[in-house]
Amino acid sequence: MANAARTGLFISFEGIDGSGKSTQVKLLAEKFPDAVITREPGGSPGAEEIRALLLTGDPDRWSAETEILLFTAARRDHLETTIQPALDAGRTVICDRFADSTRVYQGATRGDLRATVDVLHDAMIGREPDLTIIIDMDPAVALSRGLARGSGEDRFEDMGLAFQETLRHGFLALAKAHPNRCVLIDGNRDPAAVAAEISAHVADRTEPA
Amino acid sequence: MANAARTGLFISFEGIDGSGKSTQVKLLAEKFPDAVITREPGGSPGAEEIRALLLTGDPDRWSAETEILLFTAARRDHLETTIQPALDAGRTVICDRFADSTRVYQGATRGDLRATVDVLHDAMIGREPDLTIIIDMDPAVALSRGLARGSGEDRFEDMGLAFQETLRHGFLALAKAHPNRCVLIDGNRDPAAVAAEISAHVADRTEPA
Repeated sequence: MANAARTGLFISFEGIDGSGKSTQVKLLAEKFPDAVITREPGGSPGAEEIRALLLTGDPDRWSAETEILLFTAARRDHLETTIQPALDAGRTVICDRFADSTRVYQGATRGDLRATVDVLHDAMIGREPDLTIIIDMDPAVALSRGLARGSGEDRFEDMGLAFQETLRHGFLALAKAHPNRCVLIDGNRDPAAVAAEISAHVADRTEPA
Repeated sequence: MANAARTGLFISFEGIDGSGKSTQVKLLAEKFPDAVITREPGGSPGAEEIRALLLTGDPDRWSAETEILLFTAARRDHLETTIQPALDAGRTVICDRFADSTRVYQGATRGDLRATVDVLHDAMIGREPDLTIIIDMDPAVALSRGLARGSGEDRFEDMGLAFQETLRHGFLALAKAHPNRCVLIDGNRDPAAVAAEISAHVADRTEPA
């Protein structure tokens, strides 16, 4: 599919922690030297300030509802100040997590708020990536990778294998619900093989038909 | 009207800066020794953290949309952790500004976002005060009072008389649109006379019919 006009392509990566997203973001970025590489939560100075509110201090001081509002505020700032200006300048944007992560993580922890997440997204974000790469991975392997990394930032990694299975199924359902936007990639392989498959999908969206 | 069951009465004060709201909150509070006195933006530890994001640093770093999300996040926290627990315990809550201020100030600065403010309120706040006291005041007098106070926190006070007139009309329209919830009080009088009229309205809502 030809990339319409001069607007850049907005690519997001999704998947459970330890699925190899960050590695694949780096490998894809090598093929787009002028791409803007970004990630959520955070991704712009304002969004990083909001992220700090969520990650410092007692995380339990925020309700799920307040958290969703803060995540949406951060995403709005990220979209306005980092993503959209880059796309408007014709640059590719590669983003490690976007709205799908909120959908899947909230769906897994507070399923009753899933509709609220969508209301906020429609009212305040209003756009999706052009292409979402969902890396599927055996949760047992992913969990051991995630814990080994020890970033200490992800509370979800402490919630064990059953929770990672729930998240995995959330991402699989998302891929099924949005087949035009999402591609599901088997991450249980050599990183170079995974990268080659991702590159082929990106090429499909960027090269003239 | 009898106050149903044991839930406390939720009273908000609204009006332009310099209208005498804070003085009237204090005078009413003297009649309710067990009342919780609070204010927005802020009013709970979490909401104060969010408020600090909005008031420190360059205020222009946030778009109107991101600001509304942050104000709504702060209000959600304020409602959950300060207001609702007090009401559930049967206490009166007196709040200096609530959602009406967001409606009127956003309506005056970014009228196109007025519907968005309502969508967020309905999805994430979902309740109004039982009684809203709107103090009406000559904007020229109110503005001189507001500037004299010199709190330095309110960017809106720098926007001049015409803007204060717009805000005043916003509050008048709100009073007209919600006649059961809102009472309009003429603030261009001796504070004791204003307080007496407010007390009478509160008594109407708290004393057995």
